[in-house]
Amino acid sequence: MIDIATRVYNHTWKIDPIVRSVLDTDFYKLLMAQTIYRRHFHTRVTFGIINRTKSVRIADFVDEGELREQLDHVRTLSLTRGESTWLRGNMFYGKRQMFSPDFIAWLETFRFPAYHLEKRDGQYELTFEGPWIETTMWEIPALAIINELRSRAVLRSMGRFELQVLYARAMTRVWEKVERLKALGGAGVADFGTRRRHGFLWQDWCVQAMMEGLGERFLGTSNCLIALRREVEATGTNAHELPMVYAALAETDAELAQAPYRVLADWQQDYEGNLLVILPDTFGTSHFLEQAPDWVAGWTGIRIDSKDPIEGGEEALRWWRARGQDPTQKLAIFSDALDIGDIERIYRHFQGRLRMGFGWGTLLTNDFRGFAPEGRLDPISIVCKVISADGRATVKLSDNPTKAMGPSEELARYQRIFGELTAPARAVLV
Amino acid sequence: MIDIATRVYNHTWKIDPIVRSVLDTDFYKLLMAQTIYRRHFHTRVTFGIINRTKSVRIADFVDEGELREQLDHVRTLSLTRGESTWLRGNMFYGKRQMFSPDFIAWLETFRFPAYHLEKRDGQYELTFEGPWIETTMWEIPALAIINELRSRAVLRSMGRFELQVLYARAMTRVWEKVERLKALGGAGVADFGTRRRHGFLWQDWCVQAMMEGLGERFLGTSNCLIALRREVEATGTNAHELPMVYAALAETDAELAQAPYRVLADWQQDYEGNLLVILPDTFGTSHFLEQAPDWVAGWTGIRIDSKDPIEGGEEALRWWRARGQDPTQKLAIFSDALDIGDIERIYRHFQGRLRMGFGWGTLLTNDFRGFAPEGRLDPISIVCKVISADGRATVKLSDNPTKAMGPSEELARYQRIFGELTAPARAVLV
Repeated sequence: MIDIATRVYNHTWKIDPIVRSVLDTDFYKLLMAQTIYRRHFHTRVTFGIINRTKSVRIADFVDEGELREQLDHVRTLSLTRGESTWLRGNMFYGKRQMFSPDFIAWLETFRFPAYHLEKRDGQYELTFEGPWIETTMWEIPALAIINELRSRAVLRSMGRFELQVLYARAMTRVWEKVERLKALGGAGVADFGTRRRHGFLWQDWCVQAMMEGLGERFLGTSNCLIALRREVEATGTNAHELPMVYAALAETDAELAQAPYRVLADWQQDYEGNLLVILPDTFGTSHFLEQAPDWVAGWTGIRIDSKDPIEGGEEALRWWRARGQDPTQKLAIFSDALDIGDIERIYRHFQGRLRMGFGWGTLLTNDFRGFAPEGRLDPISIVCKVISADGRATVKLSDNPTKAMGPSEELARYQRIFGELTAPARAVLV
Repeated sequence: MIDIATRVYNHTWKIDPIVRSVLDTDFYKLLMAQTIYRRHFHTRVTFGIINRTKSVRIADFVDEGELREQLDHVRTLSLTRGESTWLRGNMFYGKRQMFSPDFIAWLETFRFPAYHLEKRDGQYELTFEGPWIETTMWEIPALAIINELRSRAVLRSMGRFELQVLYARAMTRVWEKVERLKALGGAGVADFGTRRRHGFLWQDWCVQAMMEGLGERFLGTSNCLIALRREVEATGTNAHELPMVYAALAETDAELAQAPYRVLADWQQDYEGNLLVILPDTFGTSHFLEQAPDWVAGWTGIRIDSKDPIEGGEEALRWWRARGQDPTQKLAIFSDALDIGDIERIYRHFQGRLRMGFGWGTLLTNDFRGFAPEGRLDPISIVCKVISADGRATVKLSDNPTKAMGPSEELARYQRIFGELTAPARAVLV
């Protein structure tokens, strides 16, 4: 029996929206937004999409009209009552609310600001200019939309049955990875895959797979909406945009050198516990750790992102010991382009020497490699980065020179202050 | 939105019936039934279920009450109007109806006869005694029910999500096989998997996979109901029960020696074209071919079943040539426990030397090997065989001594007439 009402209702939608909620974003965006709300409400920045996988000419097969429709739909969204309630219910160990009433009140009035879209050389130039507190909210939905439109463009040519087999293959692949994780003793894993996901429903499926397969060892998802609906923990802390903007706003070289620590000083006023995780690699990890004040070593953990994970973990271990900390009480979160083999390798290497968490992103929620001809469903390395703050270019050095960004004179100045980019460049898969 | 009516309706079923239609059976049962209807309407036989995989103690985990409910449900079935229409529409090349009006009229009044069920030593003794024309109809539904109840007993303990992944794995496996078939040039394949299927819906899925993957090279399904619903060809010809009963009814040794050819003489009065396929192995292929009248060599093809397929095909080639036939115009149908590797091997061996068709059964519709602990979803070798006819034991010699059956004194007599069982025994997987 066909439910006629449902069928008719489904056909009244003008589009099939990719992002349907303000909370369909990463938790760290909201944590960072609160910090921005409190301290940089009037700072203006520009975010821009950068497709590092130049060979994939997105604008050649993703229709501009469809892209605009999806972005315009996001601009109609506002926080719902149930979403507000969920945000208010997020607590530190049941004692203190993570989000203050004034920030939630602001978020209830928030609407996504305008975007600027142009085609250039087979790519979309998509930028967001305006108050940092507003433009920062675009990062995740913009990326999720482009990635899902790319998937949809490929899926459109497939038969109903071919589609079923496609998802059967993808499910089998994810489940095999989950079973390998199960076999891996105590490794805790979180979903960090919102931005590059194959699609919303697929990410939601992957989260359920992890819930059922890993039980308590599934640490949660970075996606707030899925965390709300599936009743799991929302995970995440902060990202490169904070030190990048703080650095760009610095008036002197001395202020610039202190900017990464200023971020942490502000952050620890707002957050505690598992949210106190250092992201040290924005301008090079080694220099950051050497110069860090001792209180930074007292934080709960560190995120190892652009550095080789074994090297990065060993460096953190040495640093904690040198600062009189017990590394076995510390948390290392690995999050750079992880696949199951990397997780196994890293876990076995550091087992017993520190606590580990794995932020598993693109290769959890978008591992469709080899499932379409010419790799047309393979994930790409696309990011949405802050480009300037109050009119000044932002800079990232990173531990991987492939990920460095900024105008060359600024790159030179930052290297004078934070040290040279000496690490070998490593290819960026996702 | 939930369709409340559908949900409530679904919950009003007392059981979830496994066999829901008289046509949920193999096409060859109907072809044979028509021949029986015309010539042996009053012959009485006994059919019995034999589980050759003794290690699987079905009665220990399939509930007797549930088994009775399923069998009782089959006894409530009768041919529907649409099913009659479909049967009437089955033609030889659009010229002559395969099924005569009187046979269809009989089938419209047909109800499944009583069964006899007992537990013994961890197995079900399930037998059907009565007119051949009625009891013959039990073979396929009885097997399908036992096989699906066995699947269900295992599936019951699995979570919703685990089930989804189970089917994702199974779909991936079938699709990989279909892709290997696609790569295999012109090999035509038919679904012969009704009796040992994992379940009805799964067989239906496999047929759709073959339709989409193989296109014209998918020759059809042996399952009448699926053929009707999916609008593909119903395939099949005849089985060992015909020569076994004809042989048991023979009054003298001379009649016994002729029985296998009497079957074919009757058959070719009823059928033509692709339905003229010899099944030579009931009492040993070599003797059958040597003794066959020349008109048998004029038939369209041969089914290679219990003999090693390469050996059996080569023997058929030599025999056709010896009888002045052009083997490249002949059809060999391979159907014994095939998996994709066997199909590839056989196809490559005979390519260009004869026309080939593959009747793919259990390892198409029930290849869940390794998907449950301790092989609890692995297919088993279970058959439903005619045991006696008008009070006389039936006998099968087969090309594979593992498949021989009958009382020892009768086996000895048949071997005197048809030759000794000399072939090496080959293990029976399915």
